[in-house]
Amino acid sequence: MNTDKFTNVLTPAEVLVAEGFWKNKMELARTKVIPYEWEALNDRIEGATSSHSIMNFIIAGELTEKRKTGNAVSTSDKDFQGMVFQDSDTAKWLEAAANILMWHKDNELEALIDQVIDIICAAQQPDGYLNTYYIINGLDKRFTNLRDNHELYCLGHMLEAAVAYYQATKKRKLLDAMIHYVELVDRLFGPEPEKAKGYPGHEVIEMALIKLYRITKDERHVKLAKYFIDQRGQSPNYFEEEAVTYGNGTLWNDTYFKMGYFQAHKPVREQDTAIGHAVRAMYLYCGMADVAKETKDESLLLACQNIWNNITEKQMYITGSVGSSSTGESFSFDYDLPNQTAYAETCAAIGLVFFAQRMLLMEPDSRYADIMEKTLFNGIISGISLDGTRFFYLNPLESVPESCEKDEKCQRTDATRQKWFGVACCPPNIARLLSSVGSYIYTVKEQAVYQHLFIGSTIQHMINGEAVRIETSTNYPWDGKVKIKIVTKNPVEFQYAVRIPGWCKNYKLSLNKETVKQPVIEKGYACISRTWQDDNIIELDFSMPVVIMKSNSNVRENTGKCAVMRGPLVYCLEEEDNGGNLHCITMDINGTYQSVWEPRTLDGVTAVYSKGRKTISNRNELYMEADAEKTETIALKWIPYYAWANRSVGEMAVWIRT
Amino acid sequence: MNTDKFTNVLTPAEVLVAEGFWKNKMELARTKVIPYEWEALNDRIEGATSSHSIMNFIIAGELTEKRKTGNAVSTSDKDFQGMVFQDSDTAKWLEAAANILMWHKDNELEALIDQVIDIICAAQQPDGYLNTYYIINGLDKRFTNLRDNHELYCLGHMLEAAVAYYQATKKRKLLDAMIHYVELVDRLFGPEPEKAKGYPGHEVIEMALIKLYRITKDERHVKLAKYFIDQRGQSPNYFEEEAVTYGNGTLWNDTYFKMGYFQAHKPVREQDTAIGHAVRAMYLYCGMADVAKETKDESLLLACQNIWNNITEKQMYITGSVGSSSTGESFSFDYDLPNQTAYAETCAAIGLVFFAQRMLLMEPDSRYADIMEKTLFNGIISGISLDGTRFFYLNPLESVPESCEKDEKCQRTDATRQKWFGVACCPPNIARLLSSVGSYIYTVKEQAVYQHLFIGSTIQHMINGEAVRIETSTNYPWDGKVKIKIVTKNPVEFQYAVRIPGWCKNYKLSLNKETVKQPVIEKGYACISRTWQDDNIIELDFSMPVVIMKSNSNVRENTGKCAVMRGPLVYCLEEEDNGGNLHCITMDINGTYQSVWEPRTLDGVTAVYSKGRKTISNRNELYMEADAEKTETIALKWIPYYAWANRSVGEMAVWIRT
Repeated sequence: MNTDKFTNVLTPAEVLVAEGFWKNKMELARTKVIPYEWEALNDRIEGATSSHSIMNFIIAGELTEKRKTGNAVSTSDKDFQGMVFQDSDTAKWLEAAANILMWHKDNELEALIDQVIDIICAAQQPDGYLNTYYIINGLDKRFTNLRDNHELYCLGHMLEAAVAYYQATKKRKLLDAMIHYVELVDRLFGPEPEKAKGYPGHEVIEMALIKLYRITKDERHVKLAKYFIDQRGQSPNYFEEEAVTYGNGTLWNDTYFKMGYFQAHKPVREQDTAIGHAVRAMYLYCGMADVAKETKDESLLLACQNIWNNITEKQMYITGSVGSSSTGESFSFDYDLPNQTAYAETCAAIGLVFFAQRMLLMEPDSRYADIMEKTLFNGIISGISLDGTRFFYLNPLESVPESCEKDEKCQRTDATRQKWFGVACCPPNIARLLSSVGSYIYTVKEQAVYQHLFIGSTIQHMINGEAVRIETSTNYPWDGKVKIKIVTKNPVEFQYAVRIPGWCKNYKLSLNKETVKQPVIEKGYACISRTWQDDNIIELDFSMPVVIMKSNSNVRENTGKCAVMRGPLVYCLEEEDNGGNLHCITMDINGTYQSVWEPRTLDGVTAVYSKGRKTISNRNELYMEADAEKTETIALKWIPYYAWANRSVGEMAVWIRT
Repeated sequence: MNTDKFTNVLTPAEVLVAEGFWKNKMELARTKVIPYEWEALNDRIEGATSSHSIMNFIIAGELTEKRKTGNAVSTSDKDFQGMVFQDSDTAKWLEAAANILMWHKDNELEALIDQVIDIICAAQQPDGYLNTYYIINGLDKRFTNLRDNHELYCLGHMLEAAVAYYQATKKRKLLDAMIHYVELVDRLFGPEPEKAKGYPGHEVIEMALIKLYRITKDERHVKLAKYFIDQRGQSPNYFEEEAVTYGNGTLWNDTYFKMGYFQAHKPVREQDTAIGHAVRAMYLYCGMADVAKETKDESLLLACQNIWNNITEKQMYITGSVGSSSTGESFSFDYDLPNQTAYAETCAAIGLVFFAQRMLLMEPDSRYADIMEKTLFNGIISGISLDGTRFFYLNPLESVPESCEKDEKCQRTDATRQKWFGVACCPPNIARLLSSVGSYIYTVKEQAVYQHLFIGSTIQHMINGEAVRIETSTNYPWDGKVKIKIVTKNPVEFQYAVRIPGWCKNYKLSLNKETVKQPVIEKGYACISRTWQDDNIIELDFSMPVVIMKSNSNVRENTGKCAVMRGPLVYCLEEEDNGGNLHCITMDINGTYQSVWEPRTLDGVTAVYSKGRKTISNRNELYMEADAEKTETIALKWIPYYAWANRSVGEMAVWIRT
């Protein structure tokens, strides 16, 4: 295994996002999303689906206190409410809030988090256990349904929150509590004969344990993560045995994916196709990549590469969304990418960004960063309204409001973003991603810096023994100019590798105002190895024309259709700009597409204008002899896909007939 | 109301289908379907879903006998099995078998039917009640859930069977038993204050009562039918009140159609859009038309016309199938006609033929007969294999076997016809239709004959006081030549009205070898009024080129696509002839389409050959910059849609990109 290629993420303290598109999203997360979600977790949003997540911790804490003090627990105690994984909503909010403290000092928020941590820790059992569903409903049943009941999933998310808060504040209370819980899990599950052979029905703990390990350097943490990865899908199947032992009913056995729903149909190293519940799947693949890196496991890396290829070459929307089927919120099968009924869960797209970053850490290759960027700019931020208070769980690429209402196949899609959800995984997940987006810009190794994303930012990092600052300024994605300034007290030798986006066919690269005529390109990165002086400047100018895209001909849904992209952004047509019956519109792949920066449209976007044709119909018959279609030329206005459904309710489509 | 237009059906004894396409289907029904279904009803088909329908009657009969003789009924008696409407499968088989006796003397079959009738009648209660579900499970609950439990539906079908068997044999045993049951229902339900205000959750009894009335001339029978029609959807809603009174759970209230599922959302005269469960809906509209005719009710006719227009102008597949949504097996909304997930139940298409015939009886207008013919030749007979022993419940217009297996949206569709179904409404329904297809050819009035269909047949009928025989010979639908011979002892004056099919743009009509240059056309019928002599001959030659059809531009699914028709037949492409990935094929609307009679293909069909283009793909990327599509010219072979899925399992598509 070529560990020379390995890079590392920067610590949160080393990156500061300073300006531009993503800084605005981060500020949205800080000023709107986090306060809004806090209200939601406490059930104070009028008309929103109840959460009860904080209340579950309070009730569990009271029960724990009563049990410790020997007071009888009466049946009049309040009930657990919400999904079996409701704890994870609080955990994800906590992680997002902790992320914010890494780049924005906020004593009030920190005090609130400390309060929440006190509430959480008060519920912890003496042996470390901490899951409100079982604390409230009966501890005797804990760990009897790993397949469905999300205990290890909730632990994983709380562990990630604990790590983030520790990184932000160095406060250890939640971290220590979670380590205590991890130790309990480590005593119960593992490869040793005396331990049970369980693993989570919903993955996430694997990557959480690696995050923990990177702080603690405690080998037990990586070992436990590796165990969960290695044991998954082994025969005899733990979930099947557990179901028999504890009489747990089955659900997914009646579907074609069966144990594949949990990615437990075979050992992970034998898996080469993304399958089953998409968020579960993505989190597993992240855990596999993490363990592969930490244990230098070639066979695991190979499985990750195979699965990556399957996803990105056969199962991914052009927006970077994955998991096309609402049945099981799942991957379906190769090239099955319906637009109107797309499940394309926000959380699954987030998982793809996590996976891309982890693959980049093992092999800097722009194909990972291209997808990471595509997904960030399209399939993820489509999940949140421009004002930060409405959310899509599903991100279809075509929407017809009448179908959302009347067509059962589309009824899980919404024509408008919602205030909150019964299963509220997506809103806090998007918050933790937006609040930490700076960590996806760079990865580094001893004498090299890789820049994957173009975000107005400053990093501070020790490179080759020297404290180097790197400042990026750009108006990306609205234009393709990027200026990178190196600030160093002493000259320092290292390689600066900057990604040339896959979408870009023409670019100019200059170093200190001189064009670099034949830059060295390695795996999609322009690599400049030299001794850097203070105030050295790299400039990139990515030509960013509108590009008309088509799909692989195997994608049934998109035959005869094209989509508009500009830079990393996928565009769409909305009824608001183009009238209804978008299916009657055709676009011209050889036409003129004009980009116009519109500061007052949708909080500021580059819109695209073109001419198209629309069928004129004045006939009432349902079927008639075909003749040359009567069409009229119409002006089309395209907006970035991520910004759809922020105005009037209406039709939307990404893929348009040619 | 213009009752001058009214026509009547011929009695079964007056029509004999003699030869050709439909005679073959009738013989298939007689020699294959009826014997096969008898085995199925008795659970003797290996690997087929259990029916138990006959057994339910046997068990019910034994219980009835025990109750009459005072013997205790022990709990060890055998159980009712199957759906709550399982009785109707036997009823429909009986009706089909009775239909066959009308045109094919068969002592063995008649003896078998008598045996079945004995079994059925043995289960009848002293007060006339006859429904095995309640006889076996407890009579105290009878008529407590008209909404869901299909008692009046089962009665309706058994009544239709009784009428048919009486017409075939003049035997009254089943007819009298059913009249006895109808009298019970008439005592319980009706407009009089002392009667309950119920009506069936699944319609059919309305049209059955009119069939009965046409035999009995008993006004009570038409009055009861009219009551069921008039009461439906009135406020307060009977189903809502019944649900409260008897604690019946609700299901469809959680869907957008609510009471519309049962067409009980408003009074029928206020309904103008087909809604809800498609078979229920079609049977209601038939009942409305029947009652409109018998009671000369203008407002009811108007409602029928409005609904007819809605269905045929906005909610019908080009195959004549209706009910596009699998949710509730229902009509969905205007222009929502998905191809791959089409529900398009065989029974609903049969219902559309029933409805068309009933509209024709009130106003001879070829738009009704056009749809009747389209549905017979396409959306109905697609439901049965060429060998008569495999059935489609759903009739999609596009099929991809992998989707049937893995895509939940398509999982109610099958890639191959099935041996039988848990809900086995379609196989016996198609049997009763095929066995009675002769009755759709003509309608008549005092001095006029209307020929709606072109089927090799002979009718015998008293016209204007003279016994006239009319012989039609044709190779329709394979060619458009039709020869009609009048046989009469004495010259007789009447109008012969023959339909000029809507699909036909050019035809020749001749009378006694002389071309009729400007035939009188009334509502789509060429009308020849004269004094007919023996051996007068009408000849029609309908030009039958291949026609390329398109959909109304509001049909989202078919934009940019066309379909092939020839005469009344819709064609399709199958993978067997054209390779896989049918979505990669485009057709040329200006190309040459050649018809070839192939006696050995699919039991003899006219195939159509054309050239098309198919995308060549040798790229692995999922998304790429659009360029001129690389395509190759390929030969396309089109077969009649009804004959698909009779060879290897593979893709099929009716609508092809242009």
